[in-house]
Amino acid sequence: MREVFKNELKALADDLVIMASKAAQAIEQASEAIQTNDLGLAESVIDSDREIDNLESQIDRQAAQILALQAPVAADLRVVISALKMSIALERMGDLARHIASLVRIRHPKPAVPDEFRDTFNNMGRSAKLISTTLVSLLDNPGLAAVPTINAIDEELDELHLRIFTLISDQQPGDITPAQIADVTLLSRYYERFGDQAVNVSQKVEYLLTGNWEPELSAKD
Amino acid sequence: MREVFKNELKALADDLVIMASKAAQAIEQASEAIQTNDLGLAESVIDSDREIDNLESQIDRQAAQILALQAPVAADLRVVISALKMSIALERMGDLARHIASLVRIRHPKPAVPDEFRDTFNNMGRSAKLISTTLVSLLDNPGLAAVPTINAIDEELDELHLRIFTLISDQQPGDITPAQIADVTLLSRYYERFGDQAVNVSQKVEYLLTGNWEPELSAKD
Repeated sequence: MREVFKNELKALADDLVIMASKAAQAIEQASEAIQTNDLGLAESVIDSDREIDNLESQIDRQAAQILALQAPVAADLRVVISALKMSIALERMGDLARHIASLVRIRHPKPAVPDEFRDTFNNMGRSAKLISTTLVSLLDNPGLAAVPTINAIDEELDELHLRIFTLISDQQPGDITPAQIADVTLLSRYYERFGDQAVNVSQKVEYLLTGNWEPELSAKD
Repeated sequence: MREVFKNELKALADDLVIMASKAAQAIEQASEAIQTNDLGLAESVIDSDREIDNLESQIDRQAAQILALQAPVAADLRVVISALKMSIALERMGDLARHIASLVRIRHPKPAVPDEFRDTFNNMGRSAKLISTTLVSLLDNPGLAAVPTINAIDEELDELHLRIFTLISDQQPGDITPAQIADVTLLSRYYERFGDQAVNVSQKVEYLLTGNWEPELSAKD
């Protein structure tokens, strides 16, 4: 019985790693789709978001079953509670990557972002990829050391988000259409939220390891 | 012992109602602040978001304690699991109201939205208030009847969100600054997400009452 229980907890943790890996792949491909205007790649991101959604359901069901049948306590209980919390944030990361890809698809064959925004979005894509791959490692091997790294990358994303607004304010009438401004505003917001959700997951890793509900290492305003 | 347990579950449910009420008040006041450009009101929304954040922590701690000490099963377990899920969405509704109020504060003494967008945001404010007060009633007296109502109001918010994009695309160069377009894009997105989060909560009410993880009444793409 004890062995079964340990295997169930392990399966829950493994599914979180798979979910984070899929979110990391999705944001990498969505970012590449912005840069290359690759419609097929954008559609692949959109289609595979359903797998991430299904993993959330699977994790939640597994967690509910463990609670009902095993009544875990202490560190084992924290594994289950944190999984219920993390699954929401990871599902959302998949959604945000899908939103980015959807905008590429909607604007295709036109590029989703005007030339003067391309570099900043390239940097956002790089930071978003890094925050999500760091998150995969963190979930695969939970430890407090990576938590501040995730916070630092999130701050980079926040700064890039502000840079997008500076670029927007610098536009002269006629440089860029109102619809293009709305597009870059939303795209930038999606990246910024992607970073926030990675921080949300890392805060739950902190809870998992320490039992503290108030994050210290991963505190964020 | 049984009596204590019932009281603990009741306290959890009560805190969710309080949280939803605070989110409803926040969105109502944030919407009023857009229309009246009332800086004091905007600041009050921003300040009181901390109370909503604290309620999330409180609910999560209570839920963890009930799981650890009472090992609930069946319907009682669903109360606890759904509370852990709902608290995230309700906290987020508070954040979104705060984001709206923050934009009013940042732009003050200028109005946050140009005149030609005012009516549509007024309608968004009305729908957002209605969806959140409907949610308060639903949490106060859980039943499946209100779930489709919440979905219908969310669809109104989605349509208003699209109308904002039509208004943006209709702007002629010089009508509105690039920064104003970014502002209305984000404001509209905040309202749209506010509706989505209300749907997320109502989906968990459905789980709470039926045990189905896949929402039927509150299904949403």
